[in-house]
Amino acid sequence: MKIALAQINPTVGDFAGNAKKILEYASRAEALGVGLVVFPELAVCGYPPADLLEKASFVARAEEVAAELAQWTTGVGRPAILCGTVMATKASVGKQVRNVAALLDGGKLSFVQQKMLLPFYDVFDEQRYFEPAVEQALVCVRGEPLAITVCEDAWNDKSFWPRQMYPVDPVEKLMGQWEAQSQDLVGRQRVILNISASPYWQGKQQVRQSMLAALARRHGAFVAMANQVGGNDSLVFDGTSLVIRPDGEVVAQAASFAEDLIVFDMEDGAAGAVEKPVDEVAAMWDALVLGTRDYVRKCGFSKVLVGLSGGIDSALVAAIAVEALGKENVIGVGMPTEYSSLGSIEDAKNLAKNLGVRFELLPVHDVFAQFQFLLQPLFKGTPFGLAEENLQPRIRGTLLMALSNKFGALVLTTGNKSEMSTGYCTLYGDMVGALAVIGDVMKTRVYALSRYVNRTKEVIPWETISKPPSAELRPGQQDTDSLPPYEVLDPILEAYVERYCSAEQIAEEQGVDVALVRSVLQLVEKSEYKRQQAAPVLKVTRKSFGMGRRFPIAVKVQV
Amino acid sequence: MKIALAQINPTVGDFAGNAKKILEYASRAEALGVGLVVFPELAVCGYPPADLLEKASFVARAEEVAAELAQWTTGVGRPAILCGTVMATKASVGKQVRNVAALLDGGKLSFVQQKMLLPFYDVFDEQRYFEPAVEQALVCVRGEPLAITVCEDAWNDKSFWPRQMYPVDPVEKLMGQWEAQSQDLVGRQRVILNISASPYWQGKQQVRQSMLAALARRHGAFVAMANQVGGNDSLVFDGTSLVIRPDGEVVAQAASFAEDLIVFDMEDGAAGAVEKPVDEVAAMWDALVLGTRDYVRKCGFSKVLVGLSGGIDSALVAAIAVEALGKENVIGVGMPTEYSSLGSIEDAKNLAKNLGVRFELLPVHDVFAQFQFLLQPLFKGTPFGLAEENLQPRIRGTLLMALSNKFGALVLTTGNKSEMSTGYCTLYGDMVGALAVIGDVMKTRVYALSRYVNRTKEVIPWETISKPPSAELRPGQQDTDSLPPYEVLDPILEAYVERYCSAEQIAEEQGVDVALVRSVLQLVEKSEYKRQQAAPVLKVTRKSFGMGRRFPIAVKVQV
Repeated sequence: MKIALAQINPTVGDFAGNAKKILEYASRAEALGVGLVVFPELAVCGYPPADLLEKASFVARAEEVAAELAQWTTGVGRPAILCGTVMATKASVGKQVRNVAALLDGGKLSFVQQKMLLPFYDVFDEQRYFEPAVEQALVCVRGEPLAITVCEDAWNDKSFWPRQMYPVDPVEKLMGQWEAQSQDLVGRQRVILNISASPYWQGKQQVRQSMLAALARRHGAFVAMANQVGGNDSLVFDGTSLVIRPDGEVVAQAASFAEDLIVFDMEDGAAGAVEKPVDEVAAMWDALVLGTRDYVRKCGFSKVLVGLSGGIDSALVAAIAVEALGKENVIGVGMPTEYSSLGSIEDAKNLAKNLGVRFELLPVHDVFAQFQFLLQPLFKGTPFGLAEENLQPRIRGTLLMALSNKFGALVLTTGNKSEMSTGYCTLYGDMVGALAVIGDVMKTRVYALSRYVNRTKEVIPWETISKPPSAELRPGQQDTDSLPPYEVLDPILEAYVERYCSAEQIAEEQGVDVALVRSVLQLVEKSEYKRQQAAPVLKVTRKSFGMGRRFPIAVKVQV
Repeated sequence: MKIALAQINPTVGDFAGNAKKILEYASRAEALGVGLVVFPELAVCGYPPADLLEKASFVARAEEVAAELAQWTTGVGRPAILCGTVMATKASVGKQVRNVAALLDGGKLSFVQQKMLLPFYDVFDEQRYFEPAVEQALVCVRGEPLAITVCEDAWNDKSFWPRQMYPVDPVEKLMGQWEAQSQDLVGRQRVILNISASPYWQGKQQVRQSMLAALARRHGAFVAMANQVGGNDSLVFDGTSLVIRPDGEVVAQAASFAEDLIVFDMEDGAAGAVEKPVDEVAAMWDALVLGTRDYVRKCGFSKVLVGLSGGIDSALVAAIAVEALGKENVIGVGMPTEYSSLGSIEDAKNLAKNLGVRFELLPVHDVFAQFQFLLQPLFKGTPFGLAEENLQPRIRGTLLMALSNKFGALVLTTGNKSEMSTGYCTLYGDMVGALAVIGDVMKTRVYALSRYVNRTKEVIPWETISKPPSAELRPGQQDTDSLPPYEVLDPILEAYVERYCSAEQIAEEQGVDVALVRSVLQLVEKSEYKRQQAAPVLKVTRKSFGMGRRFPIAVKVQV
């Protein structure tokens, strides 16, 4: 039997749109003569629906849509559909919703495999919503026996992971049934299907592939995973659906960061073997572009505003926006004060020219002066300091939001992860915006991505890349006045924010003075309140700010 | 044996401070001749520590502190200590931390009861962190048998709740052991101890008491619950620790919204019976005051700024701030534009006078004009609209933050829940601030609380209470231009936001046109992006905005 993996980009809650897309891909799969077409986890409602799952009407609507999709499978020659959706539970105890793989065949819901392992770490909250499966069963589709798993169900293999997160391994259980349960299955090719909504972060694609290859080898099985693609708020799903042979070799691989449909035939395991190496910088770029495009469009917008300072962060965000939405949908706004260098304004203009985007210059000197004049009676006798510095980005934020309100364009936030970590950013100032595009990208990686943008020609002015980074909020200011150089800072932050290392561990690991490390960690702790009011951050690392990292504010923490 | 319940207010992560407090209360209990002093859930580290639990050093520090506290129990005549803390697990599978009640007696850790039921709904994420207990045991302290439970363990009684959330009832299991396990226990008085960190919301105190009384009656047991008190970010713990007799009567009740130490003696069940009726408005006031005080102080601040518009929301927040922090720590700032009525400025001044707080007037006409002048080339030919309206609160937000930066005072946000629900508030404008004090209080309840403030004398000017609400962002504006009257709006919002009713259910329940309901629900859906960048909201209802309500932004939702 030929099986298709349909790697689609659903929108959360858009039942009509998602159903239409499912039938469109099912029709394409039918034309390719497949017996089964497999869709990602929660394809019917989009992943992650979060607390929408607590609304009975949402779950009821998903059940109706699944019944409508089943109708499509009635016709002669139509493939069966395996797709992710939610269903109500009948149990009188526990959670009232199930996360399931629903098999639609012959016009009806013919089999349901409930998800057994519910992730509840980092960005995942599935135990909040779902009742876990207590049992699993193999199923035959068109005479072919299949083991069906939902995402996390395949992620608890004791031979692959140093520590199991759950006491059961659903794959092991299903494979145990393969020969024990029925004489019919003895000697038949083992097949594990996995429907997933497995988000991207740096290195995830390789982990996923190694893990699935280990499963294939351990169980002597074909493993086929259909993964969701697309951005939903902070999460970017890369797709990269895979088919892996029992020897661990990749037989078929779908596109990364784009919708795709791939077909494999278990009788012809060699066909189309196309293992694609991953370039980490390119993958992160693709993730940021897709995440930006989908956030803006799924929110119902087409245009964006980016404040252009002449610095590298806003330049990179503008380049991402142009790739995501087209140059005609990006407006750059320069808002210099007297502390902005002439070079910075030139750099911003050159960037806009290179990108081909509209550029507006709104010098904020006079508004800044007016604020200072108004505050003068209260500020009299105090030195120019943080209050005056922060006025400038807050005026800029207010201007960007005024343009947003007037012209219906979303503001993109340009702060990077090094800044968000240390609080080197102004709440309601440069933190203003609908989406923190590079809020999970450390400054050193901002440089790497900018060089990637310039790989064939100068898009981001080389002057922007080569000058020392500065917020330009007071005369002659440089980032290194307040922070260690980014080559020293970023590894400290990465160790603390992403790996929870202690000050002593970091000092030893990186050969840095522990007092310096501690001063950086204190900045991280002191700025939690800013991050909790930040725009959603596109997650591209193991640990980003937002829902996956939940720290209290009113605390005493020793670092 | 006499037992003391020590209702303390710990600070998350402040191990030294919390340990000092625990020993202070233990000493006071010792002086009262008790055999056991019981502290709340996670008293050692404070609740909720959230992702701090994922740091091994945090858990290790808690274990060290528990060992230090055990030392105290070495002395002759010292009571045993039962207190909540975290410990590492030894298991090779699953989560690596346990939420436990640790019995410290005779200088050592003599017994550990791990929490079995881990809540994972609304604001609770305990399955993210903790490995649940698989078994429980009775323990004898000074010859007295006791059943020890941790918070949620007591909240799954099938005779009390219409639907059980968990398949096991730890209390039922423990009571089953009472006579089955040992002849010694036959006929002995049953005692259930419960250590809790059970946050306040409207009506919770009554639910808690009814539920514990039902447990007492069902099992013929004394039930004694030691609850945490104090504000930790969004959550306010009310304390209200209780001792309930086997007949369901309250024998002792600790203070609400304040630290307390109460003692009971099982041999003398009638002593100190002091059931206190709850006034819902007064309780909510107390919660808001305590939540504000603890947030400000635990963040290391003493002073706050409140923008005073002359309207009722900012007036109520200022009154709460004065009660929480003292009038000398509150600064009111009036920031009128040309659309502010003279009456409003007078009302703001009168409020400040009545409260005895410093008042600063910063008229923002000129800054507003300067912004409009700067934007004029871009806005030319467009009508005065949302962009111009929103400039005004954003200028005010910028001024408040400048004062905050300059003088080290936190800004309190003054928006109410009706506004946050409908998006009738300006992101980076009136939403600016460290804490959304009344962000979980609907407008109609803002009036009730304001009348409560004025119960003995006029604090909030009656003019402020009686005039029609207006944002005063354009000439003659009133809230009812954009929204239904609050008496109609608030019940719709309550049904949708707090009870997840559908448009049809609400229309029927409240006798309102379904099209009107739908238009309100669309406002709620459209403004999710604002709420995700809001300041932490003090939770005072079953469902408040923030961590307990997790909705995606980039969605298509039908209402």
